[in-house]
Amino acid sequence: MTFNEKYTEYTDKINNRLEKAIGESDEITYRAMAYSLLAGGKRIRPALVLACCEALDGDMELALKYACAIEMIHTYSLIHDDLPCMDNDSLRRGRPTNHMVYGEAQALLAGDGLLNLAAEHIGGTEPHNAEKDIKAVFRLFSSSGAMGMIGGQADDIFAEAHGATKELVEKIHNRKTGALIRAAGELGAIAAGAREDIFHDYTAHLGLAFQIRDDILDVESSAETLGKSNSDADNNKATFVSVYGLEEAKRRLGEETAMALEAIGALGEKGWFLRELADYLLNRNS
Amino acid sequence: MTFNEKYTEYTDKINNRLEKAIGESDEITYRAMAYSLLAGGKRIRPALVLACCEALDGDMELALKYACAIEMIHTYSLIHDDLPCMDNDSLRRGRPTNHMVYGEAQALLAGDGLLNLAAEHIGGTEPHNAEKDIKAVFRLFSSSGAMGMIGGQADDIFAEAHGATKELVEKIHNRKTGALIRAAGELGAIAAGAREDIFHDYTAHLGLAFQIRDDILDVESSAETLGKSNSDADNNKATFVSVYGLEEAKRRLGEETAMALEAIGALGEKGWFLRELADYLLNRNS
Repeated sequence: MTFNEKYTEYTDKINNRLEKAIGESDEITYRAMAYSLLAGGKRIRPALVLACCEALDGDMELALKYACAIEMIHTYSLIHDDLPCMDNDSLRRGRPTNHMVYGEAQALLAGDGLLNLAAEHIGGTEPHNAEKDIKAVFRLFSSSGAMGMIGGQADDIFAEAHGATKELVEKIHNRKTGALIRAAGELGAIAAGAREDIFHDYTAHLGLAFQIRDDILDVESSAETLGKSNSDADNNKATFVSVYGLEEAKRRLGEETAMALEAIGALGEKGWFLRELADYLLNRNS
Repeated sequence: MTFNEKYTEYTDKINNRLEKAIGESDEITYRAMAYSLLAGGKRIRPALVLACCEALDGDMELALKYACAIEMIHTYSLIHDDLPCMDNDSLRRGRPTNHMVYGEAQALLAGDGLLNLAAEHIGGTEPHNAEKDIKAVFRLFSSSGAMGMIGGQADDIFAEAHGATKELVEKIHNRKTGALIRAAGELGAIAAGAREDIFHDYTAHLGLAFQIRDDILDVESSAETLGKSNSDADNNKATFVSVYGLEEAKRRLGEETAMALEAIGALGEKGWFLRELADYLLNRNS
């Protein structure tokens, strides 16, 4: 099986399950939630959950449940980050942002609804494994909470207003994007009954590489290719490129990718997809 | 022990545990979360969790954990409801609202942080009981999610713009306030190892009575007494008073309170606090 075939297998499973999870309620909040949740997206975090679990021959149905929860949380964070009081972006995943379509109040509620739904989904969907499920809830919500992703977003707002040092940019990336990517590895490990931190080094380097690539794409690509506004410079965002320059950012991208690959060397053949995923993220154009 | 002594015992326990849960981080997001979470408030929902558990001789430490989680969720909903794009309120619990102090972006994140913290708290705090904890997560987040509290808030926004019928007002109250008050009963029952719905009728009538009293206070009291803006009329809010009139609202308040009391008749002596709580809510002035 090729990398693309496996990636498609994962994303098909994820998209099918997300459609089921959001249901067919005609309530406005569900429609607004579905608008962003089912808008495509690369599904990197949930695919990573599945891939980490599969590399350990773990319970793939349980991993799929956790994978959907992490994508719900990722999507909620995009909706809230795009709001006028935050980044005020109008384009996301190739479509108008949630508040452009549903209005600010309803977009706020759709984000809240997706964050709620992540917990509902883990607690209320088959298969049930109480010990693993509650551990997954704790790891996922700690990572997305004020010590993790939300803390990174708050630092990001601070940096916009006060300027950023190299240290602050690394701290922001470590939490704003990194925390949830590390959580994906933890969720895969939990589903497989392994130690939670078994993928820590791999996901930490992968997460940083992912964000550096994002920062590079923001200056080198068009909004059309990205499917979202490349608004970092306009918003005076703290990015790897703005504090290190383009050349150094590209060097670090290669370095972090290499370290991610090294961290899973022991997996041997079982790690093939995780290795190719790191290469895919290194070279992606959107 | 009198009702007031017991209520104070509960709220002291809740406030102490909430202070510990929010920690002493000097990060801006935690300070903003603590500002609203530790601003006082009547602590009705968490006290109800404790009282329902105690009426069944359940595990009070587990109940305290769930009680704190429900108050975190209640507080997040207040922060988001007060935002300019929602009710645009400036006074809450006798203090300026979160966004008046920390700005709109940080208030949004503080709300998100508290919703996250509720799940972190259940998953990461002693005592652990995986079966009960994951059930508590499911019931709590289903109640606060898009089918429950958030759905009620969305209907409320709709009613503001398009006007409200009696049916819509009952539906809004049933979800916007009612869902979380019913969840309090479920959490108490889960902590006690009882059937989740054992307090359903009591909490359903209590929740409706609570909201009717709120609507009456909004027209009869000053903002100073309430500790929050009495902005319903200004915001063209759908309330019991606006669709039924003051007299009928007062009659329904008495009726719902009586039905709440009847629903826990079988508890006998064990139900004393729950009975007095219903009377307290009937007569409260803030």
